[in-house]
Amino acid sequence: MKGRLITLEGGEGAGKSTVLQTLREHIESSGIRLQVTREPGGTALGEAIRAIVLDPELGTVCAESELLLMFAARAQLVRELIRPALERGEWVLADRFTDASFAYQGGGRGQPGARIEDLEVWAAEGLRPDLTILLDLPVSLGLARAGERGRPDRIEAERGEFFERVREAYRRRADADPHRFRVIDASRPLPRVTADAIAAVDALVADWKP
Amino acid sequence: MKGRLITLEGGEGAGKSTVLQTLREHIESSGIRLQVTREPGGTALGEAIRAIVLDPELGTVCAESELLLMFAARAQLVRELIRPALERGEWVLADRFTDASFAYQGGGRGQPGARIEDLEVWAAEGLRPDLTILLDLPVSLGLARAGERGRPDRIEAERGEFFERVREAYRRRADADPHRFRVIDASRPLPRVTADAIAAVDALVADWKP
Ligand SMILES: Nc1ncnc2c1ncn2[C@@H]1O[C@H](COP(=O)(O)OP(=O)(O)O)[C@@H](O)[C@H]1O
Ligand SMILES: Nc1ncnc2c1ncn2[C@@H]1O[C@H](COP(=O)(O)OP(=O)(O)O)[C@@H](O)[C@H]1O
Ligand SMILES: [Mg+2]
Ligand SMILES: [Mg+2]
Repeated sequence: MKGRLITLEGGEGAGKSTVLQTLREHIESSGIRLQVTREPGGTALGEAIRAIVLDPELGTVCAESELLLMFAARAQLVRELIRPALERGEWVLADRFTDASFAYQGGGRGQPGARIEDLEVWAAEGLRPDLTILLDLPVSLGLARAGERGRPDRIEAERGEFFERVREAYRRRADADPHRFRVIDASRPLPRVTADAIAAVDALVADWKP
Repeated sequence: MKGRLITLEGGEGAGKSTVLQTLREHIESSGIRLQVTREPGGTALGEAIRAIVLDPELGTVCAESELLLMFAARAQLVRELIRPALERGEWVLADRFTDASFAYQGGGRGQPGARIEDLEVWAAEGLRPDLTILLDLPVSLGLARAGERGRPDRIEAERGEFFERVREAYRRRADADPHRFRVIDASRPLPRVTADAIAAVDALVADWKP
């Protein structure tokens, strides 16, 4: 049986990387074989692209190039890691995926949705997650949390209104596909956030017959 | 008056970089302000992408990622360098441009032409050269010339049949747009090749009223 793809989405400091660690342990303890990855990155090519696209020293990167770079990393990730794992019946847990392009390059940078959908079809093989957990919280709260991590990368260095557009785009995508998305209020204490994330995953686990 | 965009195309070892130097001197000596650039590259972002996409150590790069990376570099080059130069009335001489994607990622790697045309429209702003000089020669002769340059990059390391498809794709593009293309037999001695290239450029120069 084909594996499951679960993605974590949300703005800076929402708690994606933190919740991912808990979900990883939870899924693995259910006896499911799991691949964990992140975007942009996850392959040799993708990590090299990540170093470029997030480099705070690089200077100007036009919105079109940013979109193309994100999908260049994603195309390789789908073909090299995600699709083969799913075919082997393994699960994949990803820190961001295509929804992040709709939110950041679409909502944030204004790239047309139809352009991103087109790339999703041919570059990402039309692959959609089985479950997307959107960690939603006010932008200022997320930025305050992320701010404690040290120097911001090129995208983290954007202004507040950029992240407001990102948040809105994420919420619109979740509204449009409630079956796939689980929106979690990430402004609450971490144990409550993690509990909701685990509950969302457990619905998939209960359904799983390897 | 808007400047002119001239591109040099052809397989490995065809003589693009060599002819480019002669054309540069020739155009500049006509009193025309000229920007010289190369692909992939030509901007800080583009050179960083070049280092990735040609890296012989990188391992697997799927055809989709290669295409996206080429257009990520190109999108930035058009917006940062080519378009502004043309608007200032300067000329631009480029060692490869979009035709190389049709030849290498299209003919060589099998990416659909319609996909490349679509990227050309939105990522490269639909910009087409005023003149494209195609240096055409048998694959084996070009590879023998290029072989003397030392270690091949990731794309130069392809097999002969790949370059045969690249050559055919270039020739088909030239056939389809004889007004823009000037095909030069690059198997001849260099002075004859350069003379033809200069003649092609002089037709544009004669027409030029700054
Ligand atoms: N619900 C929460 N309440 C308080 N702090 C949190 C919560 N979730 C995450 N954090 C903290 O916020 C910071 C950013 O979390 P992180 O998981 O790196 O976010 P992201 O990966 O979404 O950018 C970390 O220091 C993390 O411990
Ligand atoms: N017409 C020619 N006849 C013989 N050698 C040539 C000719 N054109 C170029 N060369 C040589 O072939 C090698 C490759 O040329 P180069 O300009 O680097 O090709 P490209 O940039 O198209 O890969 C160089 O050593 C160059 O001097
Ligand atoms: Mg994180
Ligand atoms: Mg060259």
